[in-house]
Amino acid sequence: MYDFTSAVYAVLLSFAVCVALLPGAIPLLRRLKFGQNVRDDGPKTHLAKQGVPTMGGLAIVVSFGAACLFFLKDNPDALAVLAVTVSSAAIGFIDDYIKVVKKRSLGLRAGMKVIFQLVVCAGFWLYLYFSQVGSEVYIPFLNIYWDMGLLYVPFYLLVMVGIVNAVNITDGADGLASGVTVLVAAFFLFVSLAMGSGLVPAAGAAVGALLGFLLFNSHPAKIIMGDTGSFALGGFVAATSIILKMPLVLAIVGLVYIVENISVMLQVGWFKYTKRKYGEGRRLFKMAPLHHHFEVSGWRETQVVTLFYVATAVCCLIGYIAARGAFRG
Amino acid sequence: MYDFTSAVYAVLLSFAVCVALLPGAIPLLRRLKFGQNVRDDGPKTHLAKQGVPTMGGLAIVVSFGAACLFFLKDNPDALAVLAVTVSSAAIGFIDDYIKVVKKRSLGLRAGMKVIFQLVVCAGFWLYLYFSQVGSEVYIPFLNIYWDMGLLYVPFYLLVMVGIVNAVNITDGADGLASGVTVLVAAFFLFVSLAMGSGLVPAAGAAVGALLGFLLFNSHPAKIIMGDTGSFALGGFVAATSIILKMPLVLAIVGLVYIVENISVMLQVGWFKYTKRKYGEGRRLFKMAPLHHHFEVSGWRETQVVTLFYVATAVCCLIGYIAARGAFRG
Repeated sequence: MYDFTSAVYAVLLSFAVCVALLPGAIPLLRRLKFGQNVRDDGPKTHLAKQGVPTMGGLAIVVSFGAACLFFLKDNPDALAVLAVTVSSAAIGFIDDYIKVVKKRSLGLRAGMKVIFQLVVCAGFWLYLYFSQVGSEVYIPFLNIYWDMGLLYVPFYLLVMVGIVNAVNITDGADGLASGVTVLVAAFFLFVSLAMGSGLVPAAGAAVGALLGFLLFNSHPAKIIMGDTGSFALGGFVAATSIILKMPLVLAIVGLVYIVENISVMLQVGWFKYTKRKYGEGRRLFKMAPLHHHFEVSGWRETQVVTLFYVATAVCCLIGYIAARGAFRG
Repeated sequence: MYDFTSAVYAVLLSFAVCVALLPGAIPLLRRLKFGQNVRDDGPKTHLAKQGVPTMGGLAIVVSFGAACLFFLKDNPDALAVLAVTVSSAAIGFIDDYIKVVKKRSLGLRAGMKVIFQLVVCAGFWLYLYFSQVGSEVYIPFLNIYWDMGLLYVPFYLLVMVGIVNAVNITDGADGLASGVTVLVAAFFLFVSLAMGSGLVPAAGAAVGALLGFLLFNSHPAKIIMGDTGSFALGGFVAATSIILKMPLVLAIVGLVYIVENISVMLQVGWFKYTKRKYGEGRRLFKMAPLHHHFEVSGWRETQVVTLFYVATAVCCLIGYIAARGAFRG
């Protein structure tokens, strides 16, 4: 349906749009005072990021959407992924707006955020239902599809909400979430091509937009994606994995997201447990999420980011081995 | 002949070998006093690199060679590329050794270096002759092969000697040559697979070795590849492009190498010309090669490196469009 050439054009178009937008967007966002508020308790080196314009995710979403729509054919899957991405970005935008403009540093209340996310999940669920995507997931390495039946409902919600949260947590060092997601999106592009999926333009558009964004987001970042961006990427990654029936392969390819998320859960859980048991909370990591732990241990931010890039590249290769059963026939 | 799966295993094996070697190699090289001598006239931020162990290229070559040999089948092309890579690395090693151990900062005399390179070219030429690779080159975008006849001889020498020099010049910022060459090698891996070439294990081994090396070579570098590494990579890239008949596609994909090389030629040429004409030499760039120009202009080293990575990624996509005529049939 889509060949590699059309995928390349989707990448190039969204790259060009993103690179054209950002030089104008950066001063504009700064003038609107959409600067980043850095957490006081983070690594000290991150204080330099104070005032870097955030909400760069807007540029990602616009360039992603443009290329996605331009290369869309009659298959609506890419449109559904685009809808999830844009509506997730909108949730992130509200969060950013409250944090940055209203200066309420915690942003959108957690309960409201989950409610909005569930609305997105419900909408996407309707699409999945009517387009008969079904309740199967591909089991990595075993090359079989498992029909989860009713179990699929909680699993679906876990993937959709969990991945958005995990990508959001991963977005805490210059170029980290954007670079890791370039590789994950490239993997999905490859899988979409190999499976003849309609998601090719969406995956290609994500690769291009993120490559363009990386030019301005790598250390030292001139712009930060904000929750606008990390929610959009989380929505994109989760929805793509659901349509491809590959959320379990995403658990391999997106290992960085998951490890980052688990590091926070372990840190908080252990702190609460030890506080109750010993009267004072103890920490497993010097700081959570994991990328901060490495930084506080003396690694430079760029070294942590490179480690997570290379780990993701290797995970993509292992993910290919895990997923290739789905490409035959 | 080779499928994508065998390519993935080649990447993973050389990655594993490289990552296993480097933590031991770094203190060893430091103890042997194989530390980098930084040019006094370079960007001031680079003075911090003084004493960082060099000759990391040895780890690249060993892991590259191991995976290359392990996955070699009856097609000898990968073996020929390995031979060029190792012998180019040997020239670079002599250069490094003279610079670092003998403390003669200019290294191997230029004349001797070219003579050694010509010996490598002659040996590889014999292989090409007997394996009947022929004197054709693929013309990008036009999808035709042009038999250059006798013109092929100077062209071949230009590619072989020029690319080694260009990669050597590119190797001047943390993670620059290694990261750009990961992408170029991944492109060649893709082309080798699409053309059914025997070069798959060599290209895969290069990708893996460089991903492993990048973990230690990204900013701030714990190890530098040295001329050992940059000559090896130049030899690998040039020989691969020759066997695939794609040196003109390499001119697209490896644009960064070429622009870096041209920036030096322009700088030196313009300086000499203006010196003769006006009595004092003028400069086109604040500093050559181009990556130093950006740094002296106020960019951070990591931003220049990201720019060159992203540029190479985009060039690889354009290179795919340019080369795809060769994949059909």
